[in-house]
Amino acid sequence: MSVDIRFERLVLASRANAFASSPWTDAELVSEPHPDPIYLSHGAPSAEVEPVERLRVGADRAWGEAGGNLDYGEIAGYLPLREIILDRLQARGIQVGVDDLLVTSGSQQGIDLIAKLMLDPGDGVIVEGPTYIGAMQVFDAYEANYFVCPVDADGLCVDTLERLIADPENRIKLIYTIPTFHNPTGANLASSRRNRLLEMASRYGVLVVEDDPYGEIYFGNPPSPALRSLDETVIYLGTFSKIIAPGIRVGWMVAPPSLIPLLLLAKEGVDINCNRIMTRTVYHASCDFLDEHIVELRSFYEQRRNAMVQALTQSAPQDVTIMSVTGGFFAWCDLPEGSDTEKLRKIAARHGVGFLPGAWFYPEGQRASRGLRLSFSSLPVDRIVEGANRLGHAMSEYLSESR
Amino acid sequence: MSVDIRFERLVLASRANAFASSPWTDAELVSEPHPDPIYLSHGAPSAEVEPVERLRVGADRAWGEAGGNLDYGEIAGYLPLREIILDRLQARGIQVGVDDLLVTSGSQQGIDLIAKLMLDPGDGVIVEGPTYIGAMQVFDAYEANYFVCPVDADGLCVDTLERLIADPENRIKLIYTIPTFHNPTGANLASSRRNRLLEMASRYGVLVVEDDPYGEIYFGNPPSPALRSLDETVIYLGTFSKIIAPGIRVGWMVAPPSLIPLLLLAKEGVDINCNRIMTRTVYHASCDFLDEHIVELRSFYEQRRNAMVQALTQSAPQDVTIMSVTGGFFAWCDLPEGSDTEKLRKIAARHGVGFLPGAWFYPEGQRASRGLRLSFSSLPVDRIVEGANRLGHAMSEYLSESR
Repeated sequence: MSVDIRFERLVLASRANAFASSPWTDAELVSEPHPDPIYLSHGAPSAEVEPVERLRVGADRAWGEAGGNLDYGEIAGYLPLREIILDRLQARGIQVGVDDLLVTSGSQQGIDLIAKLMLDPGDGVIVEGPTYIGAMQVFDAYEANYFVCPVDADGLCVDTLERLIADPENRIKLIYTIPTFHNPTGANLASSRRNRLLEMASRYGVLVVEDDPYGEIYFGNPPSPALRSLDETVIYLGTFSKIIAPGIRVGWMVAPPSLIPLLLLAKEGVDINCNRIMTRTVYHASCDFLDEHIVELRSFYEQRRNAMVQALTQSAPQDVTIMSVTGGFFAWCDLPEGSDTEKLRKIAARHGVGFLPGAWFYPEGQRASRGLRLSFSSLPVDRIVEGANRLGHAMSEYLSESR
Repeated sequence: MSVDIRFERLVLASRANAFASSPWTDAELVSEPHPDPIYLSHGAPSAEVEPVERLRVGADRAWGEAGGNLDYGEIAGYLPLREIILDRLQARGIQVGVDDLLVTSGSQQGIDLIAKLMLDPGDGVIVEGPTYIGAMQVFDAYEANYFVCPVDADGLCVDTLERLIADPENRIKLIYTIPTFHNPTGANLASSRRNRLLEMASRYGVLVVEDDPYGEIYFGNPPSPALRSLDETVIYLGTFSKIIAPGIRVGWMVAPPSLIPLLLLAKEGVDINCNRIMTRTVYHASCDFLDEHIVELRSFYEQRRNAMVQALTQSAPQDVTIMSVTGGFFAWCDLPEGSDTEKLRKIAARHGVGFLPGAWFYPEGQRASRGLRLSFSSLPVDRIVEGANRLGHAMSEYLSESR
């Protein structure tokens, strides 16, 4: 989309087109009024399992030591918090030191900083198709040239990836991937594909940015270790948003030693440093707590995943495919070839259920999808079941109309 | 400065040059060891007047209402906090509504967001010479083309400004100014110059960005109202960093209605939203407190200003000019024509006193200054006096050597 964006007589920056509309504005709209709508579109954690009391106690400790710690400082983040993060990284197979790590205002800021460091306008970026909407908000602002690599049940299709990455005309600088419990499909990148992805990135000299917000929220066996555990040049992004809460805005980034000083200065330029009290609050709240808390989160979200998959399996027409999901917050369905979930969305709204059409997870101009994303993270089981049932009816109606 | 910045076989973004070195790294260095150095370089508020207990109580209230407020959200910032900010704006002569305002992670983020929205590489930016170092960190990252407009005792020299702005080859898109208690000189833009600045900006279609971190910290009579009070197209930046504390990272931005939606989406792309607890904490801490607190801050910093100016007046050689300062955190001295305060800095280090040489406050490549910045905000009176005395000796030594 290219919009003529002006203010008075000024032409704004060319990147301002990226700020012309929000992908989220319509996320909770149903186009027709319903007395009791159910939104399966919201990809946030459940408020029920946000450890508010624990955070409150942590905040009290943090404020108790605030004197002398309210100045500018700690660009890389509060040191003891970085040490806690190192423990979390070990669970993902990553062994690094505190100096390989910086704390960010959520992993959104991590994506922004790495794009800021790497991308000139027109540089090629490979994203999964579909991919995380917020990442495209970043890459749009850096005027990246998108190359979309499809995702199947085993994650990113590495054969297509090779074609995209090998073509010098594409000028690929980085690959942005969510290999573990992918947003929006829930897919897990197969182990052999992980190796091939890294091998290709290394051969063609392309940076891999691994976004891993869901890696610790698995149902059953733990997932494959992070890509970063296999290759030290990978940029790894993590966050407390899914395991504690998004509103606290604390995430982190692991980067190679030669990039860390540049990333720190990029961060200094955009907001000087992270909130020094909130980073201490998260530290105190996390000590001797997070491991146990995450075990509880797993069974909590597994229950919701089960409810959604069971209800959908019963209610969805036979020719709808429900992707297997073993972790994270999302389930993905594909309608039969030729379907358009943007159209289904209008029918679903009449039935009182909302979801995110697959097309939203592709860069602008590539918008047509028979897939859709359902979030099972934020609603209680009875609402999930009712929502899935309504969606099943809506799917039947849509498919019978379009036959 | 252009550095060949690479990672493995990748060439980083062209803007990465801006992240090659930090202007702050050397700020607290004295080049020779001293048993008891005094740094008059640190431009932060005094920890003594940071209202830690008040914030702690505010935090307790904020966490008390955290349940249900820890999700993503409030991109423009917590509404009651924006209402509190409206009151602060009235003291600066600005009458706007809550929808004209967004909360930022310090005003540093405000500068970044407006640059992000406005600047393509090579676009012309007028800054004061000298100007705020952190603003240049932002403009460097957007690859701006600098035009430096000198500052005298009455602020920005509007005659030079007219020459710079009128030349179409300069492609000036914005003027970044700190008209009130300027950083680093402490100068106040004279009332007639305020009008001329705005008149010129309007005539030539250039955006004015007014950074106003110190406007409420005045000694004696209140300063002129903000530029924004005279012209609705001005972007106005404010912050709690100087009147509460920097480590909490809460500032704000007033912008014209047509730019607000774009700025909100630019903000969403970089960190989704501000910390929802810290914005509530600042709200609760500020209610029925800030007005009185700021009155105390004024007399607190006035005492320090007096101590510094008196001690300097006594200790500095006769041919050193001490600029008049009626608010803010900084005093500025000019040594005689032909002096170089970068050289003075080395001698001062031997005397055990640090300051920021004037050259640091100019864009790269324009570094030669006979001025220097002294901060009186962060040290107690006895240290200020001792530091100013040492500096006086160092100045005498430097001037007698260079004669």
